Amino acid sequence: MRSFFKVKTAKEVLESLRTVQPLGIETVHITDALNRILASEIVSSEDIPGFQRSTVDGYALGAKDTFGASENLPTPFAIVGEVRMGRKPSFGLARGECALISTGGMLPQGADAVVMVEYSQKVEDTVVEISRPVSPLENVILSDDDVRKGQVILQKGTRLRPQDLGVLAGLGVNTVAVFSKPKAAIISTGEEIVDVTQKPKPGQVRDINTYTLGGLCTELGVEPIYLGLAGDSFEDLKVLFEKGLSQADVILLSGGSSVGVKDMTLDLFLSFADVELLAHGVSISPGKPTIVARKGNQTLWGLPGHPVSAMIIFDVFLRYLFARLSGLADPAGYYRDTVEAELDRNIESASGREDYVRVKLVTEDGKLVAKPILGKSGLISTMVEADGIMKIDMNTEGLYQGDTVRVSVF
Amino acid sequence: MRSFFKVKTAKEVLESLRTVQPLGIETVHITDALNRILASEIVSSEDIPGFQRSTVDGYALGAKDTFGASENLPTPFAIVGEVRMGRKPSFGLARGECALISTGGMLPQGADAVVMVEYSQKVEDTVVEISRPVSPLENVILSDDDVRKGQVILQKGTRLRPQDLGVLAGLGVNTVAVFSKPKAAIISTGEEIVDVTQKPKPGQVRDINTYTLGGLCTELGVEPIYLGLAGDSFEDLKVLFEKGLSQADVILLSGGSSVGVKDMTLDLFLSFADVELLAHGVSISPGKPTIVARKGNQTLWGLPGHPVSAMIIFDVFLRYLFARLSGLADPAGYYRDTVEAELDRNIESASGREDYVRVKLVTEDGKLVAKPILGKSGLISTMVEADGIMKIDMNTEGLYQGDTVRVSVF
Repeated sequence: MRSFFKVKTAKEVLESLRTVQPLGIETVHITDALNRILASEIVSSEDIPGFQRSTVDGYALGAKDTFGASENLPTPFAIVGEVRMGRKPSFGLARGECALISTGGMLPQGADAVVMVEYSQKVEDTVVEISRPVSPLENVILSDDDVRKGQVILQKGTRLRPQDLGVLAGLGVNTVAVFSKPKAAIISTGEEIVDVTQKPKPGQVRDINTYTLGGLCTELGVEPIYLGLAGDSFEDLKVLFEKGLSQADVILLSGGSSVGVKDMTLDLFLSFADVELLAHGVSISPGKPTIVARKGNQTLWGLPGHPVSAMIIFDVFLRYLFARLSGLADPAGYYRDTVEAELDRNIESASGREDYVRVKLVTEDGKLVAKPILGKSGLISTMVEADGIMKIDMNTEGLYQGDTVRVSVF
Repeated sequence: MRSFFKVKTAKEVLESLRTVQPLGIETVHITDALNRILASEIVSSEDIPGFQRSTVDGYALGAKDTFGASENLPTPFAIVGEVRMGRKPSFGLARGECALISTGGMLPQGADAVVMVEYSQKVEDTVVEISRPVSPLENVILSDDDVRKGQVILQKGTRLRPQDLGVLAGLGVNTVAVFSKPKAAIISTGEEIVDVTQKPKPGQVRDINTYTLGGLCTELGVEPIYLGLAGDSFEDLKVLFEKGLSQADVILLSGGSSVGVKDMTLDLFLSFADVELLAHGVSISPGKPTIVARKGNQTLWGLPGHPVSAMIIFDVFLRYLFARLSGLADPAGYYRDTVEAELDRNIESASGREDYVRVKLVTEDGKLVAKPILGKSGLISTMVEADGIMKIDMNTEGLYQGDTVRVSVF
């Protein structure tokens, strides 16, 4: 076995991914834009709502005509019309006049406030008594109160949420420029790995990483390209890998945990022109046997064979990488949610590497408690049992029972 | 205006949705199963890994032969072979013999432990000295250590995560039975509402709810069916609504905030056979003018016209409803994530209703602080400004500055 000759810290690897550029730009309809990343800022081309609008049901009128009104001495107003929804009122108001208006209706000329229907008493068909004064602009949205023409509404690099789509519609923006979705080619390899449809013989196990990695990509809006299992030979693997390089921005090669496969992966990466080796080994546990290389804006990943280790490497590096490729302004938007919990036992950790520990989260006496799942590292069933994972920093020799820890939720 | 004649609490409405049943069952490939809800439990039909497996690189041997080994007095072993990955070893071990093995390799007959390569020293081509004793089963996964034949791996009603897909693959399960995705027909109405492609005239605003609601549905794996804007007449609305009822499980009608539209919505709902009115008004602010009806397993929603109110009603009721329709065992899985924050000012609230207040979340002196967004309720721009929303319970008259509040993150 060749020893890892270029072991890097997580920070160093992330630093070398910083220069990865977002992909191309495409235009999509807002009904297809959920979770897409804006490729340019959105500036309003108009004032919203664009007219003076009532925020309540009641009577539009001149505020100063209500001054002095009270329950004991209500002020009478002549009702000269009703504002129809969606129409500019065809009439104006003189002093002492008012008009019936619904929430969202447009104020007539001469009105600068709306009295809620609760503070009125209709005494005749055309006369209403107002029992409470209103200030000018009370219960009114001004023409540019919501959005001013020229205002920046959404920044470039924003991941579009449902409410963002609504606001875009409100501005009349029905298509938006977004960054293209990254594509990730997924290849599994390893002499002991068989396809999900096969019955493993003694010594063999089924390919798990293809499906975990595919799901992790899909969750981030990255399109997985499933290239399947490579044969055992270098040539077979190279053919599949070239296919990946021709179609995808990121190649995720994983599977075998044998030394031979790791050596072959390194040779494979270095066999392509213009490939720069970023890391041969990372100071992360589990996950050390990771190989990272770069070819222009494409990145090549030799992931650990063990599914849990592959997931951890995905969390530490690929989430950041896909944020870069997607043009997401704040990469944290692609990270897992975290919760704080109290650690229920001491945990040792070797200094000089980041340790990742799977935990169960349970509520005890109203507190969230993190219970490390120890035991054998090779088990895949712990992936479904764990509720999350906590990191022990590089310069920490361990954590103590009772420490508050931050857990990334699975 | 008819007053709301059947105002219900949120709890009462949720209670009446409890009997909504999950939809049909369909079979999908695991590469298409992310976030789908399992329609039956998954039981393993085999032991995993199915053979005794090494968790490290090193030498497979009989543990008891290593007892007494130390750095000063290492025990020599005869190397009689190398375990090939993915193959059942063709040889067995006698006492004092060992075999080279990689992580994931199958233990030969006669071996019950693996010594890590770090504790070995090869002295000749066929002789290695072991400097540390191992216990029986050390660095070994037993045949059924990971998953036992007959073990329930995933429960019915589970939302499938990436790691669940991986474990399914590991068990040889490449297709799964999942509940069909709910379909939601989305209709907007209201005299003042125009389509996103139109330039509003004074008094008009563009349809926002169609897009916000569509995004909220999509996020939960619910298929939105965009039926667009209904004309102003009852007949136009009825035609579109019938289209919705023929295609969808849930009809979301929203848009106009005028009294006329609300009355028309109620008449419309009651014009269909076998419709039960569940609520005409809910004690939630904002969001009171909500109409809910049920026709068998279908539900009919007259949502508030205001986009923020419509979003709140979606959060309070539709998330729960879609969890029921999707067969999700724990509806909380469809709720928003929450964080705790410190309230930065006093907030009043009327007793007898649930109040929802939009907040900005900022970190001050290392603490998360919730700053209510007050001001005019009619503004849509607050939807993008807000970081979340906090609820003031029905029986609370307000909250105080410094109170710890739970904020649902937008």
